[in-house]
Amino acid sequence: MISILRIGHRPYRDKRITTHVALVARAFGADSIFIDTHDEKIEETVHAVCKRFGGDFLIQTGVSPMKIIKEWKGQIVHLTMYGETITDSLRVLDNKKNLLIIVGAEKVPPQYYDIADINVSAGNQPHSEVAAVAVFLDRFTHSSWEKKEFQGNMTIIPSKHGKKVISNEKTE
Amino acid sequence: MISILRIGHRPYRDKRITTHVALVARAFGADSIFIDTHDEKIEETVHAVCKRFGGDFLIQTGVSPMKIIKEWKGQIVHLTMYGETITDSLRVLDNKKNLLIIVGAEKVPPQYYDIADINVSAGNQPHSEVAAVAVFLDRFTHSSWEKKEFQGNMTIIPSKHGKKVISNEKTE
Repeated sequence: MISILRIGHRPYRDKRITTHVALVARAFGADSIFIDTHDEKIEETVHAVCKRFGGDFLIQTGVSPMKIIKEWKGQIVHLTMYGETITDSLRVLDNKKNLLIIVGAEKVPPQYYDIADINVSAGNQPHSEVAAVAVFLDRFTHSSWEKKEFQGNMTIIPSKHGKKVISNEKTE
Repeated sequence: MISILRIGHRPYRDKRITTHVALVARAFGADSIFIDTHDEKIEETVHAVCKRFGGDFLIQTGVSPMKIIKEWKGQIVHLTMYGETITDSLRVLDNKKNLLIIVGAEKVPPQYYDIADINVSAGNQPHSEVAAVAVFLDRFTHSSWEKKEFQGNMTIIPSKHGKKVISNEKTE
């Protein structure tokens, strides 16, 4: 079980970035995302993607981060540009155990740096939590997302040019 | 030389996503980004990051995509969820040649699917152009970003807990 915990989400300002974090989590092999601030719109967007493209990804907004952390049975990492390199982090993480990945929006309160078993960076340069989640999950799961079947109503077939889509969606 | 060409950028709506695309491009080994719509704010943000954290990443906004494409000497890929898998794409791409990476915001006009030498997907699921750029660059460059020295005024030292920063910034 791999879950993302998104903290500091501000619905107006972070709407699109947090949506990207959620969709990346789903596409790259996480099972669920928890978002601290209640946000129905993001829930709707993610549910709509799951309905069309499949998989059983779970989203929950309006959660208490500390409650999630306290009840988490497994490892906890915090993604930050200040963290350890991914390569060195993977030496201490066990990819057979549950993993909670904390991802902040803007400034993260100091306690999260301590709560995490390890702070991990996808490069020590400022860039994007969306990219950090993708690259970290890619490495942690040994790219198992590449083989994952989502079995949705819409399936896209890889193609060098044009679009190849198998759709079982009902027209209403 | 690796460049990103961001098309369909709408300054108000895409401000943060395109900024993330630019910073990810810089952090994961691209040399420059061209953005079709003029946007001084993104230029300022990226210049500020380069000034503090180093490197000679170039940003240019308000460009003609077709002019960039026409004058490009090298390979062109278009990142899209409809594209070929990264693994299969890398068999036809040459990482010693220049590479222009087209990244759309929302719906991309059909001509870009044809102009690219190959359409490439970082997974055929809907997620994020920010993640697609990161994962594609990671694979295309064989993760050379991990060794890159930016030699900026601010250098972050990887750390399992807390923040370790070497700063040569002048206080004014």
